[in-house]
Amino acid sequence: MKASELFFPTLREDPAEAETVSHRLLFRAGMVRKTAAGIYTYLPLGFRVIKKIMNIVREEMDRAGGQEVGLPIIQPRELWAQSGRWEVYGDEMFRLKDRHQRDFCLGPTHEEVITDVVNHEVHSYRDLPLLLYQIQNKYRDEIRPRFGLLRGREFIMKDLYSFDVDEAGLEVSYQKMYDAYCRVFERLGLQYRVVEADSGAIGGNVSHEFIVLAPTGESVIVFCDACEYAANIEKAECIPHMSAAENELPLTKVSTPGQKTIQDISVFLNIPDTRQVKTMVYVADGVPVAVLVRGDREVNEIKVKNYLNANFIELAPEELVREVMGAGFGSLGPVGMNMKVYADLEVQSMNNFVCGANEDDYHYINVNPGRDFQPEAFCDLRNAEEGDICPVCREGKLKATRGIETGHIFKLGTKYSGKMGATFLDENGKERLMVMGCYGIGISRTMAAAVEQNHDENGIIWPLAIAPYQIIIVPVNSKDGQQMEIGMKLYHELVKQGYEVIIDDRDQRAGVKFKDADLIGVPVRITIGPKLLKAGQVEIKKRWENEVKGVPIEHVSTEVRSILRED
Amino acid sequence: MKASELFFPTLREDPAEAETVSHRLLFRAGMVRKTAAGIYTYLPLGFRVIKKIMNIVREEMDRAGGQEVGLPIIQPRELWAQSGRWEVYGDEMFRLKDRHQRDFCLGPTHEEVITDVVNHEVHSYRDLPLLLYQIQNKYRDEIRPRFGLLRGREFIMKDLYSFDVDEAGLEVSYQKMYDAYCRVFERLGLQYRVVEADSGAIGGNVSHEFIVLAPTGESVIVFCDACEYAANIEKAECIPHMSAAENELPLTKVSTPGQKTIQDISVFLNIPDTRQVKTMVYVADGVPVAVLVRGDREVNEIKVKNYLNANFIELAPEELVREVMGAGFGSLGPVGMNMKVYADLEVQSMNNFVCGANEDDYHYINVNPGRDFQPEAFCDLRNAEEGDICPVCREGKLKATRGIETGHIFKLGTKYSGKMGATFLDENGKERLMVMGCYGIGISRTMAAAVEQNHDENGIIWPLAIAPYQIIIVPVNSKDGQQMEIGMKLYHELVKQGYEVIIDDRDQRAGVKFKDADLIGVPVRITIGPKLLKAGQVEIKKRWENEVKGVPIEHVSTEVRSILRED
Repeated sequence: MKASELFFPTLREDPAEAETVSHRLLFRAGMVRKTAAGIYTYLPLGFRVIKKIMNIVREEMDRAGGQEVGLPIIQPRELWAQSGRWEVYGDEMFRLKDRHQRDFCLGPTHEEVITDVVNHEVHSYRDLPLLLYQIQNKYRDEIRPRFGLLRGREFIMKDLYSFDVDEAGLEVSYQKMYDAYCRVFERLGLQYRVVEADSGAIGGNVSHEFIVLAPTGESVIVFCDACEYAANIEKAECIPHMSAAENELPLTKVSTPGQKTIQDISVFLNIPDTRQVKTMVYVADGVPVAVLVRGDREVNEIKVKNYLNANFIELAPEELVREVMGAGFGSLGPVGMNMKVYADLEVQSMNNFVCGANEDDYHYINVNPGRDFQPEAFCDLRNAEEGDICPVCREGKLKATRGIETGHIFKLGTKYSGKMGATFLDENGKERLMVMGCYGIGISRTMAAAVEQNHDENGIIWPLAIAPYQIIIVPVNSKDGQQMEIGMKLYHELVKQGYEVIIDDRDQRAGVKFKDADLIGVPVRITIGPKLLKAGQVEIKKRWENEVKGVPIEHVSTEVRSILRED
Repeated sequence: MKASELFFPTLREDPAEAETVSHRLLFRAGMVRKTAAGIYTYLPLGFRVIKKIMNIVREEMDRAGGQEVGLPIIQPRELWAQSGRWEVYGDEMFRLKDRHQRDFCLGPTHEEVITDVVNHEVHSYRDLPLLLYQIQNKYRDEIRPRFGLLRGREFIMKDLYSFDVDEAGLEVSYQKMYDAYCRVFERLGLQYRVVEADSGAIGGNVSHEFIVLAPTGESVIVFCDACEYAANIEKAECIPHMSAAENELPLTKVSTPGQKTIQDISVFLNIPDTRQVKTMVYVADGVPVAVLVRGDREVNEIKVKNYLNANFIELAPEELVREVMGAGFGSLGPVGMNMKVYADLEVQSMNNFVCGANEDDYHYINVNPGRDFQPEAFCDLRNAEEGDICPVCREGKLKATRGIETGHIFKLGTKYSGKMGATFLDENGKERLMVMGCYGIGISRTMAAAVEQNHDENGIIWPLAIAPYQIIIVPVNSKDGQQMEIGMKLYHELVKQGYEVIIDDRDQRAGVKFKDADLIGVPVRITIGPKLLKAGQVEIKKRWENEVKGVPIEHVSTEVRSILRED
């Protein structure tokens, strides 16, 4: 492709709204544009990357026995009513009515549609297992879409659904997909980690996330330094640190004027964070509840939501808290609290701790569970942290890192087949529920994650397998007949060998061409300049190295082949 | 692929609601299922066909210089307000609000989105021409979705948009696309015809349709038996047949009790259809208008709509007609009519004709234009018919045939760039509007059209290029070890040679396997039965022929290669 004909409007400046590296670089590289909040247009370079990711995913799904189908994006309410998720999905689901006032949604996921299809067509154990997948747009009406492609409202996903006769069959399908996903991320050339994860709105009780590692990622994962355990902190089980027992001292209210945070109290009362209890108020399905964790810990909202079996949970606004408790954030505590209280396991062994007195500017000291308050339950409600003891081997310590969730696989069991009556007749003619799994890869999110992981200050550094083009040829001066002639000769030679090549024939300064080449992240740059040309050489530069190398023109394709690891 | 693992739920019976051949056969062959009215799921065999069509289209778009992009399906109202089409599209557009109550639609077409992108990024004549395309779902909320994939509410399209500096540039882009479309339909292996067409809601003044010929098609096209002229009857210009002048006789009202149709009057008054005038009442953008054509002609609603420059037009309901005119259908006429009247060109030269008297059971005879009524205009308002004189060479006669519109290309000119302010600076630094074209191929509709054109009483006969698999191997008895062994050997051999092969290993009677093979339309069937096997032979059958041929096992791949025309 000639750069003069390629539509890749690069930008020198970061777009004002870009919050993350991938958002910034994909925009600047002319790969993506915003059409509306969370809704994007893929320009030619960006869509080439998307297609490469799709193809790798498609090949691995086919290899694992998946059969590709095309499911509707627009889905009738009736199917979602059967599963009960028409209500559960809430405002995150785009809904619409057709001209006959019938309700539809834009599919955020396709369990209902695919289960309905399979339920109508599959009647015998002989027709199972079945692995069906599609690659398609999905829709989630995020409250605040952001981070570019990482959290869009319209995004591209591959979703596969497995149908088996029993749990043992599901185990086989799940492992097939687990392995296929590992192959996908390896082929994509991304560093990733598989972690145990929460199942969220999809449901089921076992799930794993495939996390592309990047310090800018939204997901925090922990992994054991001694065993194989790894989990999203949303999911990671916490082994409570047990406090030493002390004699209980008398509950005392103390004045703490203007002291609100754990840190404030730490200084003001001269006690460590670990001797305080943090009280957070949430609204779970419309009902306010209080959650307690040790002062240095973070509440894990997912664990709270799961423990309460709630559909929606959010932090209570301060007005509500003040109305119910008579005190604001920073002065709350479990003593005399008029709502249900749930305490993290660690709180159970804490003695004589400090917490708010539900009165502005006052705290209690020497609070003791059992004596001064009685929670509904003690349970695991906090985030895991670096340094925690591994919940599996109980020997190693957890380390934490960040990344981006790009794949998620779920054992659904009979959650959907049960609700939708998807049954089959087994060998004995007995009717049984199909046992399901579902398996997603965010295609557009993977593109963004690849950039979060692979870039430098000059632009994107695409992994070889998904670079929009593999080679860019830059004649330093496009008006120089000899440079362009050599350039076009190399171009045709490399294209003939099957490479995807750009030749930058634009009437631009060399600096502009180099900047664009770096920005769009093409792995191999071949520069044709006057100096080396006199010696019959061109310059080859790998995008991920600073050094350049003079190479005789007749050796270019050998050199390129060796860089692109195809020899 | 083993048939035992392939998900292709065939049906022996036609689905009750199927109205067309393709609807019936695609359902029976287990290729498509309905999820809601006009909304379909593509099962694995069907989606393989879709992908093959997509790939041929993609290759030809790339070859013609197109660059693939991905545009959003969900589009903000603001863009459609700019072009003025938010209103024009009416109920056919799916509309929805997001959680913040902002208006969106599901794209029925993408002129607005792409013009917005190009407008923001392209500023100079140097960046033009530009040909951008995508392959994606489109949405039209048809009043009555039917005919399966031929008229769905969610369907797959390829749409390309061209941007040029001037009309001459558009001419080049348009011809490129015209040629690319011809290559596409040739490669698909479909019989088609290119015809002049009406531009409809897309706009512009020149357009061509690519019609896949099939007697079951909704589109009627006419073509000249002497020159190259061909057009959709919606568009075909009509040369009026001039009636011989006669002396005007006195206007006379006659009693015609119970006589309503042209045929009734023909018999009752003993005059030919051609001496009568048919009066039809339409509601155009809310206003009733009358349209006159010769008694044997059909009104062309598209021509009426275009002449009136109306957004919507529909036949007036009889209650409205009676309320306004005091008479029902079959008794209407232009004499003393209290609404605007538009007459077809042929009516101008008719003398002493018969028409309704706007009074039930009465007609006028000896009606004469000019003397008895004066229409707003005489213009071309009728459908072309077989036998009409060619409007181009004026020598040949038109012939008519039927088909399915699967491609449509439009010269848009500056319709959208003008409304959306999409300009560029020319060589002289002068700001000018981009000149656009748009070019669509219905991917899912092409699949259905291929079936309408290529089938027999036993099922589909896929053209080679888009068959879901090329070869099906049928061991007559899957429990026979030798048959299965030979079958699997051939299977692996043919797969290795790059063919797409099914082996029907199901424990089914041979008759069931043959019926399924015919139904799904695989081009080459290789049958392995006991009799021929004794002679070291298998049986090869082409789907489009009845004869079978015994072939020595070792010659199978040569034979197959020659059938699939790849040697």
